[in-house]
Amino acid sequence: MTQPTGPAAKQAVRHDAMRARNLALVLGEVAARGSLTRAALSEITGLTKTTVSKLVADLIEAGLVVEAGTVRAGERGRPGMEVRISGERVAAVGLEINVDYLSVRLVDLARSVRLRRTQAVDNRTARPVEVIAALRDLALGLVDEAVDIGLQVVGGVLAVPGPVDLATGVVHNAPNLGWREVPVPELLRLPFPVRVENEANLAALGELWFGSGPPDFLYVSGEIGIGAGLVVRGRLFRGARGFAGELGHVVVSPDGPPCRCGARGCLERYAGQDALLTATAAEDLTELVTLLEAGDPRALAACERAGRALGVALSSAVNLVDPDTIVLGGIFARLFPWLADTVTGMLAARLGQMRSAVPPLVVSQLGTEAAALGAAGQVIQQVIADPTASLPT
Amino acid sequence: MTQPTGPAAKQAVRHDAMRARNLALVLGEVAARGSLTRAALSEITGLTKTTVSKLVADLIEAGLVVEAGTVRAGERGRPGMEVRISGERVAAVGLEINVDYLSVRLVDLARSVRLRRTQAVDNRTARPVEVIAALRDLALGLVDEAVDIGLQVVGGVLAVPGPVDLATGVVHNAPNLGWREVPVPELLRLPFPVRVENEANLAALGELWFGSGPPDFLYVSGEIGIGAGLVVRGRLFRGARGFAGELGHVVVSPDGPPCRCGARGCLERYAGQDALLTATAAEDLTELVTLLEAGDPRALAACERAGRALGVALSSAVNLVDPDTIVLGGIFARLFPWLADTVTGMLAARLGQMRSAVPPLVVSQLGTEAAALGAAGQVIQQVIADPTASLPT
Repeated sequence: MTQPTGPAAKQAVRHDAMRARNLALVLGEVAARGSLTRAALSEITGLTKTTVSKLVADLIEAGLVVEAGTVRAGERGRPGMEVRISGERVAAVGLEINVDYLSVRLVDLARSVRLRRTQAVDNRTARPVEVIAALRDLALGLVDEAVDIGLQVVGGVLAVPGPVDLATGVVHNAPNLGWREVPVPELLRLPFPVRVENEANLAALGELWFGSGPPDFLYVSGEIGIGAGLVVRGRLFRGARGFAGELGHVVVSPDGPPCRCGARGCLERYAGQDALLTATAAEDLTELVTLLEAGDPRALAACERAGRALGVALSSAVNLVDPDTIVLGGIFARLFPWLADTVTGMLAARLGQMRSAVPPLVVSQLGTEAAALGAAGQVIQQVIADPTASLPT
Repeated sequence: MTQPTGPAAKQAVRHDAMRARNLALVLGEVAARGSLTRAALSEITGLTKTTVSKLVADLIEAGLVVEAGTVRAGERGRPGMEVRISGERVAAVGLEINVDYLSVRLVDLARSVRLRRTQAVDNRTARPVEVIAALRDLALGLVDEAVDIGLQVVGGVLAVPGPVDLATGVVHNAPNLGWREVPVPELLRLPFPVRVENEANLAALGELWFGSGPPDFLYVSGEIGIGAGLVVRGRLFRGARGFAGELGHVVVSPDGPPCRCGARGCLERYAGQDALLTATAAEDLTELVTLLEAGDPRALAACERAGRALGVALSSAVNLVDPDTIVLGGIFARLFPWLADTVTGMLAARLGQMRSAVPPLVVSQLGTEAAALGAAGQVIQQVIADPTASLPT
């Protein structure tokens, strides 16, 4: 196609780009501050009140913000009508494939979790196409229910337990699922765009947006595998290829037991769910917790060993990335009472002399829901960063 | 003091803020693209030609840019005069305290290295005040020489081999210097502001700005200590407290030999300069290289051991931060021929199955000068990011 290129067309392109930038600016401020009057928005953004009113009208029409009631700002002046993010029109889907469950979450633009569906499965015995088909059914059911409550799904993000090629969504190797080179997006084919990302990264974002996460922390996701997500000033650190945070394969002992990843002595071999269950002959995590509560020596010794290994790997992580806080999530949240002292002691022993403060260790508030919530939250961030895509042109 | 607060004063504040932003915008584009006409700057920034001309005039007057010759842009139109960053007025000082040398570098705003002074010392046997006084003398001599060639020093950054509190410049603990809680800035007192930062971080930035560094890499600084600087999309990753990149204390073997940092089995104990010299009975690095060139079995075995340990620690680093490339600098640059195969082999063995690509290992082009150049480069970046501080008001 030939594009018009004269001065008028150029001016129109500039005007559209400016409008998109200003819409994002206004929506971003409303999202960050909860609710604001048009006058306050004009003050903050430096845009004129007329421009702000026009932009707010467009955002209201698109269902992205709503009027929220009047406030009187300061002593003088007319009371203003505040606007806030609307939870009534636009929604996002967070999806997760893990080793032993599938889950989907519907979250509205105001970050309320509206619908939850989880399905227990054993994805190690199923083929990738079967797993993805089951997830597709779960998600389509959720979308139908979303429509019933007046919500329109604008996008989704899928969490998988392994490194993902962010450009293509291909899962190169998820050893705990037994997946290699699985082209997830083309198999999933949902009626909205879906990006694929690593589970631990998304769980970290879940903790940031839906939990009690401070703006700088290393989130540790204990599952059958162990991953980590580093959040820096409220943003996820992904690394050059999106493969950062593979804490489970950090070296605890270079000549230790062989790992599914091909290396030896990785953290996962000492502190992953399978290592813990095998060492204690427990059927599942609930049984392990019961044993620990009963003071079973073998269970306590396995947690001690896992805690020491976690402390070693985390001391390497602190030396490399210097997080403000360490948040233990996934199975480590349930095992926190039996891990915390060992991990904290190891961190103090290895880091205490070099640093004025060793990062505190805290427990995640979200448990296994963190990744799916972080996934939905990413879609919401995207809408807020670029609302033009959700507006009628 | 009482600030005027009426609408006129508010407008003046807004105008000043806008001018500062626009000056930074114009100077940043010139710095990023080498040289540009005023017309091209107007096109890129969206500012009017009149505004651009006024901003460029201010930058020329401040000595930050100069006119560089005429070009004819495209087929039609008048030829335009290009402007580029000026190397004739403003300069920065990069300083370094290392275990066995002091160095200062004078770099102009166009990033040419104008003066170099290095002094061999043994800072382990001297008190911090003596070391800092010697550095002060070296720097003051350099500033005098800068004045003689018409350059005005606007600031400096000092590299030290250990973690630094970025807010105060206090070196909490630099075990290889034997320093604890040294308030460097108040001891140094130079006639321009000086920030203090970790040596490896600054060496990474030196590699980025003055070497052949790609925009995403992990720079490994081998000295008596071992540090690393992670550069992500052209920016240094510092961590929550500025202590990221302590690769020397990443765990190679959790029950290995005790390290000066208080932990055991840290990388530094296997691959630091002292470990290498002790294992080979070499006096210094030059002697070690001579032994390696002669095929001395003990020297070769020590490099093999260091390379394996470096491979283990770097595989943990790649798992955690996923750098695009690994750059070996400092003593590892000189030892590269005897380390590279072992390190590469270890990375492939530990990472190859999980990742479609293992980060390539390359050698630094700058050697021991990297940190001081990165330090000066930081001052230059600061001037370009906020030129208003260098302008007459």
